[in-house]
Amino acid sequence: MAASRPFTALHGDPMAVESLLRDVFGIVVDEAIRKGTSASEKVCEWKEPEELKQLLDLELQSQGESRERILERCRAVIHYSVKTGHPRFFNQLFSGLDPHALAGRIITETLNTSQYTYEIAPVFVLMEEEVLKKLRALVGWNSGDGVFCPGGSISNMYAMNLARYQRFPDCKQRGLRALPPLALFTSKECHYSISKGAAFLGLGTDSVRVVKADERGKMIPEDLERQISLAEAEGSVPFLVSATSGTTVLGAFDPLDAIADVCQRHGLWFHVDAAWGGSVLLSRTHRHLLDGIQRADSVAWNPHKLLGAGLQCSALLLRDTSNLLKRCHGSQASYLFQQDKFYDVALDTGDKVVQCGRRVDCLKLWLMWKAQGGQGLEQRIDQAFALTRYLVEEIKKRQGFELVMEVAPVLKERMVKKGSMMIGYQPHGTRANFFRMVVANPILVQADIDFLLCELERLGQDL
Amino acid sequence: MAASRPFTALHGDPMAVESLLRDVFGIVVDEAIRKGTSASEKVCEWKEPEELKQLLDLELQSQGESRERILERCRAVIHYSVKTGHPRFFNQLFSGLDPHALAGRIITETLNTSQYTYEIAPVFVLMEEEVLKKLRALVGWNSGDGVFCPGGSISNMYAMNLARYQRFPDCKQRGLRALPPLALFTSKECHYSISKGAAFLGLGTDSVRVVKADERGKMIPEDLERQISLAEAEGSVPFLVSATSGTTVLGAFDPLDAIADVCQRHGLWFHVDAAWGGSVLLSRTHRHLLDGIQRADSVAWNPHKLLGAGLQCSALLLRDTSNLLKRCHGSQASYLFQQDKFYDVALDTGDKVVQCGRRVDCLKLWLMWKAQGGQGLEQRIDQAFALTRYLVEEIKKRQGFELVMEVAPVLKERMVKKGSMMIGYQPHGTRANFFRMVVANPILVQADIDFLLCELERLGQDL
Repeated sequence: MAASRPFTALHGDPMAVESLLRDVFGIVVDEAIRKGTSASEKVCEWKEPEELKQLLDLELQSQGESRERILERCRAVIHYSVKTGHPRFFNQLFSGLDPHALAGRIITETLNTSQYTYEIAPVFVLMEEEVLKKLRALVGWNSGDGVFCPGGSISNMYAMNLARYQRFPDCKQRGLRALPPLALFTSKECHYSISKGAAFLGLGTDSVRVVKADERGKMIPEDLERQISLAEAEGSVPFLVSATSGTTVLGAFDPLDAIADVCQRHGLWFHVDAAWGGSVLLSRTHRHLLDGIQRADSVAWNPHKLLGAGLQCSALLLRDTSNLLKRCHGSQASYLFQQDKFYDVALDTGDKVVQCGRRVDCLKLWLMWKAQGGQGLEQRIDQAFALTRYLVEEIKKRQGFELVMEVAPVLKERMVKKGSMMIGYQPHGTRANFFRMVVANPILVQADIDFLLCELERLGQDL
Repeated sequence: MAASRPFTALHGDPMAVESLLRDVFGIVVDEAIRKGTSASEKVCEWKEPEELKQLLDLELQSQGESRERILERCRAVIHYSVKTGHPRFFNQLFSGLDPHALAGRIITETLNTSQYTYEIAPVFVLMEEEVLKKLRALVGWNSGDGVFCPGGSISNMYAMNLARYQRFPDCKQRGLRALPPLALFTSKECHYSISKGAAFLGLGTDSVRVVKADERGKMIPEDLERQISLAEAEGSVPFLVSATSGTTVLGAFDPLDAIADVCQRHGLWFHVDAAWGGSVLLSRTHRHLLDGIQRADSVAWNPHKLLGAGLQCSALLLRDTSNLLKRCHGSQASYLFQQDKFYDVALDTGDKVVQCGRRVDCLKLWLMWKAQGGQGLEQRIDQAFALTRYLVEEIKKRQGFELVMEVAPVLKERMVKKGSMMIGYQPHGTRANFFRMVVANPILVQADIDFLLCELERLGQDL
């Protein structure tokens, strides 16, 4: 057994550790940050899967590799990855590369701690509390609870679990068989995590009653009323309505006030899936899209989307002040949540969640917020709306942008293989495949929108 | 609307972005890496919550802050955080700071993509497949399936959900009310995520039948048989047994072969929670502790624990080759999983999970493995076992180390406030609070163990 301190594969040399990390950081700056956000570089270097496997030499061996080889590998991983911070990446509901958020992420990864107790995450327990308080204030609450979850889907599942526990506390111990058949309500434009969650939580996808949406994609409150009556007539017990602020495909904002009225009338838990649209609350100009959100019981909001905090940053916010989160999820593990600690154990927030170890997701958002201020973040939101409006106006001016035949998959293949840009496409209802433009990256300017339109024309020239 | 490219709060200056990140990286190297892993520095700089709040000035304002202020904040966040890579941090089942894994994490954070499709994560879709294949090979499977989950608790929940879906596929659509009452079995030493999972999945904590463990903490297979009969006699349908390889408190390894026999006899899904102990499979000397794991249906294994890959890195491995994961969790969202793509859509693994966006958790493990080789990782495991043996022998030599009174909480307070080291404590059965020593950090040497023992004596001198 070694008596001197080993640093495996770096031969006990702390200087080698620093030097390796400095070299890796240099590669990250050159390849991922400088090139990765430059409009003159490709968004992606497309390779067929078999070829990429060869290029990457993925197999894990018994022998370790040299420092030079490892640095080459870092370069290759970045080179063949998609640059989600690139100004021509419109493919997902997240994009952009905020330098302060990235700084927060690098610190988080280096400190490598878990969010469960004050003991091992003193800074982050207090910071999470502060960030959640700020998000709640934007929702319109001056008290409440909350927690960061591993993604919006799990935030939505948390809301569903809390709603059924509040109504039927027996469920935790005795399970769903002890309960009447339950029904929850969401529009047909909702995110698919609602039905995935219903299956995972044992409710079954049948328990999700689909409410009609208008042609803009907004839930129709009158149909919600109808669906509630229908479910009750069939012997089910309605317990939750999930409205959406910023639907995945059309970006629609459900009419929250009208939905809140329905929930109030029927005594239902009102959840708002604002994973995409929650960040609009920062904009004084556009926050009216979420009017009524203060009447919700729970809100899911992903600052990793429109605010670009980095994957993942998903807050579940609660109006509850009765410690519902901990009562619903807690199990008082004696090795973590000792009650005879020398500090206030209310700070040990880990028992609020169904995970055990939980990543620190607050620092990246906090640091970005400190640097930009609420005003800087507000400008980003307003800029995204302004560019979207510009895009719509430009499309109206151009011929050929209302497609009557199926060209999206072909254009998509061409743009990816060329590496010039990335946009997602999909069908919707009776509409054929169309491009879903996501305008979120804070470095975007009008020229990027112009490029997008011209490039679509170029790619589709011969069709 | 800005016509030139903005970089909010960095005034449109890409050089300022690089320069900021270089400065942050310098702080990270100095404060978190150099000081954070040095035995002559404190493990933590303890502050009472109220004082720490003042020191950190957490509140989020409307105005952004200067670059200098932001750099000070980075320094403060690191300074007041616990150094989990420090050689005197024994507090959790994770510790250490592997430089290659950290390099992988920094690249992951910069590329900031989601693991769901080949389209936006070509490198990581292929890499995850390769890493999972390697982990499965160590379990003893040359085929199968798997996925990285946000932590071991969720990996365990996945196993529970898959087991019930395989037995009762109706559950996904119709929910648990359509099923008979279910029962699952685990020992009293299991991780608390099993009962949290049972509650979350709608089964209820009552569905968890607790099997006796021997005094070393290993599940007693005869009692498992008894509990199964008992559950059946009460009208429940047994569907899953969760064995543990490396229990949370005692580090016990359940007798997997004997448990597999029971599962086989009763046709039950056999899950192994090897979150802590799975990495022992890398050691030819010690892997016998998991003999029989190849007979499991599913295995949860967290390389972020004993291998130090960084939070979070938790693999759920499956023996299944029938695409059970996708059938159980899939919902075919049309905006992500278009079937008319120009590449093999079997590479779009996102529909295997209940999340939507999913972090990239494979690169940190892959890069560390490439650098250390299987042999280097094996040495770490063997070194941890050797140091543990050394610790046990040294304790036997010292008087006063079998405590008869409650001193652990007092010693804990003293060590944390001094910042000299961190060890977790807890009660167990009829035993009073005791220290749970976790020997996992690869930089540990005998001198650290000697320090630990002497320091405990020093801290407890007057008791």
